[in-house]
Amino acid sequence: MKVRAPLHYALALGLTAFVGLSQADGGKVVNFNITEAEVAAAQAGWGEALLQISSDNRTGGIEKATATAKAVLDAAYGYNLGPVLFNPTLTSGEQNFRTTHEGALAYFVGGNKDFPSDSGFALNDWRKYEYKNAAVLINGDMALTMGNVMLTDKDGNVTTVDKTWGFKKDDKGALRIVLHHSSLPFTPAK
Amino acid sequence: MKVRAPLHYALALGLTAFVGLSQADGGKVVNFNITEAEVAAAQAGWGEALLQISSDNRTGGIEKATATAKAVLDAAYGYNLGPVLFNPTLTSGEQNFRTTHEGALAYFVGGNKDFPSDSGFALNDWRKYEYKNAAVLINGDMALTMGNVMLTDKDGNVTTVDKTWGFKKDDKGALRIVLHHSSLPFTPAK
Amino acid sequence: MKVRAPLHYALALGLTAFVGLSQADGGKVVNFNITEAEVAAAQAGWGEALLQISSDNRTGGIEKATATAKAVLDAAYGYNLGPVLFNPTLTSGEQNFRTTHEGALAYFVGGNKDFPSDSGFALNDWRKYEYKNAAVLINGDMALTMGNVMLTDKDGNVTTVDKTWGFKKDDKGALRIVLHHSSLPFTPAK
Amino acid sequence: MKVRAPLHYALALGLTAFVGLSQADGGKVVNFNITEAEVAAAQAGWGEALLQISSDNRTGGIEKATATAKAVLDAAYGYNLGPVLFNPTLTSGEQNFRTTHEGALAYFVGGNKDFPSDSGFALNDWRKYEYKNAAVLINGDMALTMGNVMLTDKDGNVTTVDKTWGFKKDDKGALRIVLHHSSLPFTPAK
Repeated sequence: MKVRAPLHYALALGLTAFVGLSQADGGKVVNFNITEAEVAAAQAGWGEALLQISSDNRTGGIEKATATAKAVLDAAYGYNLGPVLFNPTLTSGEQNFRTTHEGALAYFVGGNKDFPSDSGFALNDWRKYEYKNAAVLINGDMALTMGNVMLTDKDGNVTTVDKTWGFKKDDKGALRIVLHHSSLPFTPAK
Repeated sequence: MKVRAPLHYALALGLTAFVGLSQADGGKVVNFNITEAEVAAAQAGWGEALLQISSDNRTGGIEKATATAKAVLDAAYGYNLGPVLFNPTLTSGEQNFRTTHEGALAYFVGGNKDFPSDSGFALNDWRKYEYKNAAVLINGDMALTMGNVMLTDKDGNVTTVDKTWGFKKDDKGALRIVLHHSSLPFTPAK
Repeated sequence: MKVRAPLHYALALGLTAFVGLSQADGGKVVNFNITEAEVAAAQAGWGEALLQISSDNRTGGIEKATATAKAVLDAAYGYNLGPVLFNPTLTSGEQNFRTTHEGALAYFVGGNKDFPSDSGFALNDWRKYEYKNAAVLINGDMALTMGNVMLTDKDGNVTTVDKTWGFKKDDKGALRIVLHHSSLPFTPAK
Repeated sequence: MKVRAPLHYALALGLTAFVGLSQADGGKVVNFNITEAEVAAAQAGWGEALLQISSDNRTGGIEKATATAKAVLDAAYGYNLGPVLFNPTLTSGEQNFRTTHEGALAYFVGGNKDFPSDSGFALNDWRKYEYKNAAVLINGDMALTMGNVMLTDKDGNVTTVDKTWGFKKDDKGALRIVLHHSSLPFTPAK
C-alpha cells in the first residue's frame, strides 16, 4: 500500500467531499493505481541514474559504474517480474532485444564477452538529461509514455532519441520499467 | 477517456512539475483509472436513484417507478457487460442472487410473477439515504467499497444494511456496479 | 514494504511453465492476470485453511490454532497491502468490519479482550467445506466471486452463508483476499 | 461483455478445470482480460489490414485505399479513447508523433497537405507480412508486444522494423492499439 504523504492528503481533501467524509467516519482508502506524479518521478529518475553511472565511471572507474548500473537495474527495471520488453537505442541483429538482466547490464556498461558489440551506453560521460512527452497513458498499475529524450555529453553534443517506456507499479509502490523502446529519429533522404 | 474538468487541471498542476511540463510541451495524458471523487459520486448517485424511484412511485405510480428503475439499471449497473454479482438485502433461496437485469428489476420494483417473493424494495417510500464507508479499495478501472447504508422511510424508521459495492469504469468514463452484496446486520443472541 | 522472500523466486520459476508454452516463435510471455484456475484454488484453499485451524485446535489447542490462523492471514489475506474490506458473518456494531489483521485474527480464534464478542469462528470444529459460485468476475490482477459457502460441523450440522470475495494477485503470483463479505441468508417472515 | 465465440469457448474449456466446475455448479464467469490468442489475432490483423490497404490501392485507387485505412483506424486503433502513443517508422521532426486520427491516416495513405512529408506508408504495394515477438506482456485489459515485423513488397524486397505495440481491450471485447512505436533497426558503423 502506498503511504499517503501529507501532500496527498491535502490534495485528496481538496478533491472531494467523499474523502472528507471518509476521514470523518474513519474510512480508509487503498489505491493501487499509478499517478501522474509517480510517472514524472520515474522518468526523471531514469535520467538521474544514467548520469550517475557516467559520473561513477569518471570518479570510480568501470567497477563503480557497473555496481551502480546493477543497482539501477535491480531497483528500476522489472527483471524481477519476468522478461522486460527492452529494445535499446544502439543494439542490432540477434542481440537487438535485451529481455534479460544480463543483456541490459551489458548494454549500459559493456564488458560482457557474450555481448561483444556493447561498448557501454552509460559510459559516454553524459552530463545532462531532458525528456519531453508526446503523450502519456495511465491504465491501472501501468503507465505508458512516448516522447523524446535529449542527452548531452561533456562536449555539449546533444543526442535526441525517440523513447517509449512502460512502467508497472509493484507491491512496494515502486514503479518498474517493464517496456523500453528507444530508437534514433528517422532521417528522410535529402 | 475521462474528460479533464477544470478542477482536475488545477489539482494536476498543483500536483507535479510533470503536468506543467506536459502542458507546456503539448504533452497529453489519458487516464483510465477510477478516482476517489468518481467513487463518491457513484455511491451518492445510487442513493439518489433509490429515492427517485420511491418518489416516482408516489407521484406517478408503479409504471413511472418501473421506468425509472429500468433506466437506473441500464445506466448504473453493469448488466450490459455481463452477469452482475448482485446479492440483494431481502432475497433468499433459489433466487438469492440476481445476476440478470430482469432479476434486479424485479427486486427493486416487484411485479414479476417469475419472482413471486419480490414486493419491490425501492417502493418502500424511502425519504433519506446516507452511507458510511469502512474502507475503499481502488485498483485500475475498478473500485470496491464496504460500509453501511442507512435508509429512512416516511415514518422516520431507519434501516441500516451492510453494503459492499464493486464499480467498474466503462469506455465512456461511467462507473457501473458490477458487484453489490447487501445484508442485514448480524444480531447476536441475547 | 514487503520484502521479497526466497519463496518468490521459487514461485516465479514455477510460473514459467506458461512461458515455455509460448516458445513457438521464440517469444516470451509474462502474464500478470488472474486465471479461473487460480480463483478456484484460492476458494478451495480458504476452506482447507479453516478446517486446518479447527483441526489444529482439536489436536494442539488454542495456541496451535492461533499460530495457524496467523499464518493463514499472513499468507492468504491482503493486510500486508493495506486495510482489508472484511465483513465477517457474526460480527456486529462498532466492530462489524475487520479492516485490520488483529481484528481478523480475533474473529477467527477469539482470545482478544479488545474484541470481547469474538468466540472464535474457526474453533467451531468444522469438518467439511463446500462452495458454490453464483458468478465470478475477473478483471486484471483482481477477481470477485459471489455465492454460497456450506460448512459442516462435527455433528453434521450445515451452516450456509452468502459469501463475496475479492482476490488480488501479488507480485509473487499469490492470490490475496482484499475483500470478504459474509452474511447469513435472509429469512422471510412466515 | 464480449460474446464468447466457439473458439473462445474451446480455449476456455481447454484452459482450466474450473470452467468445467463453474458450468457444473451453474456459476457464470465474466473475464475482462486479454488472452494470448487475442493478442496474436490482433497482431495478425494489423498486417492483414496493411496488405488490404495496399491491395485496395492497386484495385481501387487512392479513394478506396483511404476508405479502408479510415475503417482500420476506426476499428483497430484507440483514437476513440484518447490520444494514441503512435511513433511511425518514417516520420520525423515536429510531426514525428501521430497522436491524432488525422495524423495517423496521413501517415498510412498520405494526401494531407498538413502532413507534407507523408507519401503513404501503406501504399508501398506490400504483399507479405510476418511478425516475430521477442516478448509479450499481458496486464489486465492491456497487452504489450515487442519484436520485429517483416514486410515484403511486390518485388520481393523485405523491410524489417523494430515494433512495439500496446493493445487495450474495449467494452465490446475488441483490442485497440493505444501504443505503436516502430523504428528502423540500428545499423552499427562499419
